Amino acid sequence: MAVTLDAPRFKHKVAVIGSGNWGTTVAKLVAENTREHPDLFEEDVQMWVFEENVVIASDSPHYDPAVGDAPQKLTSVINTHHENVKYLPKIRLPSNVVANPSLLDTVKDTSILIFNLPHEFIGSVCKQIRGHILPSARGISCIKGVTVTEDKVELICDYISETLGIYCGALSGANIANEIANELWCETTIAYNTPPCDRRTEIGAAATNGGQDQQHRDSRGAVSKVQLTPLSRDYPPIDHAELRKLFDRPYFTVSMVSDVVGVSLAGALKNIVALACGFIEGHGWNMTAKTAVMRRGMLETIQFCQEFFPETIQEMTFWESAGWSDMIVSCTSARNWRCSKLAVERGVSVYEVERTELNGQKLQGISTTKEVMSFLRGRGVENKYPLFKAVEGIVDGTFKVENIPVLFRH
Amino acid sequence: MAVTLDAPRFKHKVAVIGSGNWGTTVAKLVAENTREHPDLFEEDVQMWVFEENVVIASDSPHYDPAVGDAPQKLTSVINTHHENVKYLPKIRLPSNVVANPSLLDTVKDTSILIFNLPHEFIGSVCKQIRGHILPSARGISCIKGVTVTEDKVELICDYISETLGIYCGALSGANIANEIANELWCETTIAYNTPPCDRRTEIGAAATNGGQDQQHRDSRGAVSKVQLTPLSRDYPPIDHAELRKLFDRPYFTVSMVSDVVGVSLAGALKNIVALACGFIEGHGWNMTAKTAVMRRGMLETIQFCQEFFPETIQEMTFWESAGWSDMIVSCTSARNWRCSKLAVERGVSVYEVERTELNGQKLQGISTTKEVMSFLRGRGVENKYPLFKAVEGIVDGTFKVENIPVLFRH
Ligand SMILES: NC(=O)c1ccc[n+]([C@@H]2O[C@H](COP(=O)([O-])OP(=O)(O)OC[C@H]3O[C@@H](n4cnc5c(N)ncnc54)[C@H](O)[C@@H]3O)[C@@H](O)[C@H]2O)c1
Ligand SMILES: NC(=O)c1ccc[n+]([C@@H]2O[C@H](COP(=O)([O-])OP(=O)(O)OC[C@H]3O[C@@H](n4cnc5c(N)ncnc54)[C@H](O)[C@@H]3O)[C@@H](O)[C@H]2O)c1
Repeated sequence: MAVTLDAPRFKHKVAVIGSGNWGTTVAKLVAENTREHPDLFEEDVQMWVFEENVVIASDSPHYDPAVGDAPQKLTSVINTHHENVKYLPKIRLPSNVVANPSLLDTVKDTSILIFNLPHEFIGSVCKQIRGHILPSARGISCIKGVTVTEDKVELICDYISETLGIYCGALSGANIANEIANELWCETTIAYNTPPCDRRTEIGAAATNGGQDQQHRDSRGAVSKVQLTPLSRDYPPIDHAELRKLFDRPYFTVSMVSDVVGVSLAGALKNIVALACGFIEGHGWNMTAKTAVMRRGMLETIQFCQEFFPETIQEMTFWESAGWSDMIVSCTSARNWRCSKLAVERGVSVYEVERTELNGQKLQGISTTKEVMSFLRGRGVENKYPLFKAVEGIVDGTFKVENIPVLFRH
Repeated sequence: MAVTLDAPRFKHKVAVIGSGNWGTTVAKLVAENTREHPDLFEEDVQMWVFEENVVIASDSPHYDPAVGDAPQKLTSVINTHHENVKYLPKIRLPSNVVANPSLLDTVKDTSILIFNLPHEFIGSVCKQIRGHILPSARGISCIKGVTVTEDKVELICDYISETLGIYCGALSGANIANEIANELWCETTIAYNTPPCDRRTEIGAAATNGGQDQQHRDSRGAVSKVQLTPLSRDYPPIDHAELRKLFDRPYFTVSMVSDVVGVSLAGALKNIVALACGFIEGHGWNMTAKTAVMRRGMLETIQFCQEFFPETIQEMTFWESAGWSDMIVSCTSARNWRCSKLAVERGVSVYEVERTELNGQKLQGISTTKEVMSFLRGRGVENKYPLFKAVEGIVDGTFKVENIPVLFRH
């Protein structure tokens, strides 16, 4: 017999923090879903735009002769033409994606924050919004990468969580923004370990006692430093089912897991392996050699996760899109792979390729390799990760690509 | 304190049964190793050649004006010029690879039999040599594929084992014969579950009691129907270390496992997945969609192994070269993938492509799909394998490629 319950008073207000290639794509698909689930979400999705001026070319359908070549605000172009002409050109956005140049206005009253910016900007964004968000907001980070220093590995989700005092999960997978924006099907993984204070085991039962005695654990499995404010019963729950409703599209299949560490680290460490694969192919080896290196890279990734996050890691995570699938795509077509391949083909260092080919941008694989190796060295375990170590050696010119097979000797 | 022992009286005599592209390549690398390990192996490696006549082209370095265009026996060309001009042209074979047109002479006194022929010839070969081999011989099958009928799945190794009354392991991996013949590095997996009667835990101890009370188990984990003749103490042992010495080369890294079922089934079922990936790419989806299908295909493969061989399967097998690596290569460059991609691009059936493109040869993926599905249907579990089922449906024209993403819905 169904129990009649009071419906939650509020719906979730969703915002995307960031509006690059991937941020705009995620705003599009999320906005399609808020329209399809008006019971759970407010229709409008705020998208924070790092404001800049753009000039609309005269051959663009958005060109206005009255404006001509005069620079216009990117936010107003997006809100007028429903297209992010700079970061996701030629893709029509749903009209409920609302570009907002004010970070504080974007996050105001927002209950679900989707972080989607290049790694290097997350620190300043978090500092700006700290204290200005709903204390019971929840986050999903779409940012790949981790921050590794000599003495710790910090997941971006944990950084967000600790800086803002909210729980934050991670979205990662074999995803290429432009393809998804064009609704070419692929899948992704969302890791979200619903905090105990948010769990509603009996629908409509009185709110659980606020996380006081149900301790929220961080990614390492330790009791979190963050004292969570439970999600109010005035809002619908945020758990795997609701997150799937927010992100899953017919062209974007979401698979939900709880292992935030595995998803985050797989998304970061694959960049080391992608460099290795570029070296391998640059040297003239083929696909068969590359798969050997990917396999070894995956085994070192899992070993890393199990060594430093033994409490929370789940081996099945690496079978997800965020695991093998992302590894394969990153080792076949992404930037780290392309640059390291070029370096060997040209007989120059990857730094040289980074300088000449990337227009001032940095190769994430290089910094990840350096940071991970210095972390491992700090613990005296660098020799347990021979492939990672070899990549560092090749980057620095102290290990020869042709010696990679020697690492596989018994 | 070292115990002085009688060295084994004999060395292992090694033969390769089959001399196609892969058979000749394996004969080459094995012959390099028998030379390097004269303590374990006789130097000469017999290679059985299905005899045929070949004509040496006048621009070949092996052309002899005295012979001219007259057909010559392939075996004598191989033994004279140390090149398999038909199946592995331009690769110099070590002179200790001895081509032999007589199957019975090839296997005579042979203690290690390496089976390397197309799937369809193994039955007749086994029938011919039954009763003519050393009862204590041991086998390694390099043949990919399984024989599935409505009521059973039979591994090629088990077929060999039961037909000949010997133990047989499997070699499989992301291997392309021509690359390995050119000594381009890759790796492989050998599965060998050393029978209890062959195990020598204390070197030089009296022979174990002959397998009478140490039952040899077949791939299903059941006590084998095959009553093994233990390997005589007059021979060196055959275990992981020795097999590695026989197959591992600086350009061919061997990893040893015990899970014969996992290695064999991964090598066979990947052909179903390769068809699926070709369909996906033929339809215009990219790498990201393909990795989703590969991942799902791998999960169904593991599920299949666990459902029907629960006693013996080891999940780590799928992390080996015979698992993920071979899957990736087969879904990126091999024949099943190429033909199914072509079928969708041209808007015709795979049967049509098979007929027009393959010169009378058959697409292994089609028969594997059909056989596996009829086996699953016989057990009423076909719906637990939605991707395999969809591949069958696409092959038969009853399922549409564009509906593959629907299989991934929750
Ligand atoms: N693009 C993809 O296909 C893809 C896919 C999966 C994951 N990702 C991840 O998503 C994240 C974002 O990548 P992207 O491709 O959208 O990046 P992008 O290069 O397209 O976006 C750059 C963004 O940074 C903003 N920006 C510039 N200066 C800034 C500043 N000082 N402060 C704040 N913002 C500033 C720009 O306005 C722009 O929105 C990355 O972590 C990336 O790894 C990207
Ligand atoms: N070629 C590769 O790169 C590769 C790699 C890994 C595994 N394999 C597997 O190795 C096995 C052999 O493949 P291959 O590529 O060497 O085949 P192939 O097509 O090169 O060889 C055909 C062989 O079959 C022989 N043959 C023809 N008619 C015969 C008959 N009636 N009886 C017996 N033999 C006959 C021919 O003499 C020739 O030696 C297959 O199971 C294949 O899946 C091949």
